[in-house]
This record gives sequence, structure tokens and C-alpha cells, in this order.
Amino acid sequence: MRVAVDIVIFTIQAGALKILLVKRKIEPYLGQYAIPGGFMHEDEDLDEAALRELREETGVTDVYLEQLYSFGAPRRDPRGRVISVSYFALISADRTLSAGSDAAEATWWSMKELPRLAFDHAKILDYALERLRNKLEYTTVGFQLLPEKFTLVQLQEVYEAILDRKLDKRNFRRKMSLLKILKPLKEYQTSARRPAQLFRFVASRFEKLKDKGIVFPF
Amino acid sequence: MRVAVDIVIFTIQAGALKILLVKRKIEPYLGQYAIPGGFMHEDEDLDEAALRELREETGVTDVYLEQLYSFGAPRRDPRGRVISVSYFALISADRTLSAGSDAAEATWWSMKELPRLAFDHAKILDYALERLRNKLEYTTVGFQLLPEKFTLVQLQEVYEAILDRKLDKRNFRRKMSLLKILKPLKEYQTSARRPAQLFRFVASRFEKLKDKGIVFPF
Repeated sequence: MRVAVDIVIFTIQAGALKILLVKRKIEPYLGQYAIPGGFMHEDEDLDEAALRELREETGVTDVYLEQLYSFGAPRRDPRGRVISVSYFALISADRTLSAGSDAAEATWWSMKELPRLAFDHAKILDYALERLRNKLEYTTVGFQLLPEKFTLVQLQEVYEAILDRKLDKRNFRRKMSLLKILKPLKEYQTSARRPAQLFRFVASRFEKLKDKGIVFPF
Repeated sequence: MRVAVDIVIFTIQAGALKILLVKRKIEPYLGQYAIPGGFMHEDEDLDEAALRELREETGVTDVYLEQLYSFGAPRRDPRGRVISVSYFALISADRTLSAGSDAAEATWWSMKELPRLAFDHAKILDYALERLRNKLEYTTVGFQLLPEKFTLVQLQEVYEAILDRKLDKRNFRRKMSLLKILKPLKEYQTSARRPAQLFRFVASRFEKLKDKGIVFPF
């Protein structure tokens, strides 16, 4: 039995939720797209293997990474028994990625225009998306997809992209304001048509809300 | 590399949170206590392996079972590389358990008086307890530990046992009543000093609450 780690890497680009896929250079599924990943080495822990694969295939080292679920159906890999320990990673849109040596091609794909995926990777991706949506409600996971300073438009875009539906702007801002987890800055984003105020996420305030059992019911 | 499944099995007995441990009949850790589990077979999926081990070691088949986390530190097993895919299971106190052939001794242990555990099982158990506590807030997991019909005293005991703290009775009942997820029955438990009304959990009402983002902030 062999153990592989596979990593679903999400980002938000131009208001759309995207994931990173690599084109396979070897059999099986040569030439098809897959979630980045590979076999675990003898001397490393699972998290270490996931971080190594992420670095090798994307060039990125400092990201939000968490273990997702292990998949082990008997015929999920034509080479024999391979257990996949899957991870999900979030990368903010302002981070640059470089495809590494393992991947013939590593590219961002919109969740709405995905190619056919190798192995059971479509199933792993479904599971990752469900986890991401659930976590949006009771953790700070959404902020991992934003740069440190962001506008309210950017924040709403993250929620809309993950939930895959439009949110009412006034309602969204009212709820966010009630939560008191954003610190308004004296800085503005000036690239847009009119300057938009920048905000920072205040983690300590979020912790207090969590203790009270308050969630993000968007 | 070998893959094992290990199962943390929780129950509530006499108001205390307990887990099932087996005394190891083979090396390594011969004679020490461990979470029930074993190696995956060639022809089964992970969930199937977990259900099989559960059946073999406890005689139980129809329980709440969910995958927890995979552990893969290089030296977690002295026999060589073994990845543990851990599960957690919840069994209501009214279900009888019989130790199977694999386990020399399968017994319930209070979380407050645990023996030293084999392998990294103490770490797996910590992780399972944290998951159980988190899930208590936003899922119906607590009801899996109760018989179909239960008293409010039994319900509060489950919450107190998992959270490991006393809850105010009036406050607990007021919150439960606001959630409207309990159906009062015209039946009473008469074994106690005075008859206590029995309730049933209404899953459909809980789903509605979840859609609104309401949690159980006890």
C-alpha cells in the first residue's frame, strides 16, 4: 500500500473561486489534469509531505494548509492500492505562483469551467469545497484568501465566490459591521473608479465572538 | 508503508464521558491499552475497514462513525511506517457492547482516569475530544449519545460530560426550549425518584436552524 498527499489549492481571482491544477506528465492519466500531489517520502510526516509537494509544484511555502480527508477506495488508482491523504490550501490573490519542476503545467482554473480530472480528484475537490463553505461560517478562513489590507468590495467578493451566490451589499456590510471584526484603516485603494477604504481583520475580536457561539450567517 | 484504521469510541455512562480501550495481545506495546483498530485489508475502503474493526472489537455495527484525521509521524510505530487513519464513533449508553476476538479485553474508561496509551493514541484521543466538543456546537452529534427517548436531565448530562463543566439547569432548558428541536412525548421515565418527561429530537427542525446560522452556545 502506498500513501499519497493531494492538495486542493484555492484562490480568488477577479471575483471567482479558482483552484490550481497540474497537467500530468506521467501515466496513469498522462496529459490529464489533476490536483497537485505525490507520494509520501519514507522520512516525513503527512504535513511535511503536503508542504513539500506544495513547494515543488507551486513554489509557495507560507500558506494556510489543513488536512481535509483521506480517500482509500480499492480501485481509485490503477497502479494498485494508494491511499490519498488530501489537504486544502488557501492562497491570497496577491501572492505569485510559479509552477515547479514536477508539473508540466500548473494553472488556475475557475470552479465553473473545470476540465475532467484524473483519479477520484473530482470527489476530493467536492469535499474540499464543502469544507471551505462550512468553514466560512464559523472560522476566519475567508480572510486567508484576502491580502492583509482589503476593501469591503473585495471581502464580499470572497464570500460570494465561495458561496456561489450574490449577497445584498447593504445587508452584508451591516452584518460585518455588527460583528466588529474589521478595523478601518486611514488608507484607501485608489485603483478603482473612486477611492475605497481599506480594512484589516482583527483576529482577537473574532475569538471573542466564537466564545459566544456567534457565527457568520451570510 | 502500511495503513491502519483506529477508532475512538465515545459513550456516556452515569453522566461521564467514556471511551473504549483494548488491552494489546501482541507486540509492540503488549499488555498496554490502545484505541481499537487494525490494518486495512487489500480489498476494502477506509470506512469499510473502520466498520469491520469496530464490529470485530466491539460487536457493534450500527453506530455514528466519522473519519477524524490521519496521523503519519515517521516514528509513531516501532514496526516501521504505519499511517493511522483515525475515526470517531458515538454509541448511546443503552447499547450493549461485547468485546470481540481481536481484543483480549475491551473496556470502557472514564476520560478522567485513563491509563497510559500505546503508540500516539493519546494524541489521537485529544484530537477526537476536540472534534466532539466543536461538533456539539453546530451539529446534532450530542443526540447520537442518547437513546431515542430521553429526559432533559440525560440531555444536560451529555453536554456536561462532553464539555467537562456543570451547566446551569434553568439556563440550559431555556436555551433548548428556544431552539425548538425537542418534541415532548406523553411518556415518562419512572425509574427516577419522580417521573421525568421524555423527549425526542426533531432533526428537521435542527436543519432549519442550521440554515439560519444558529448554533448551540452552551
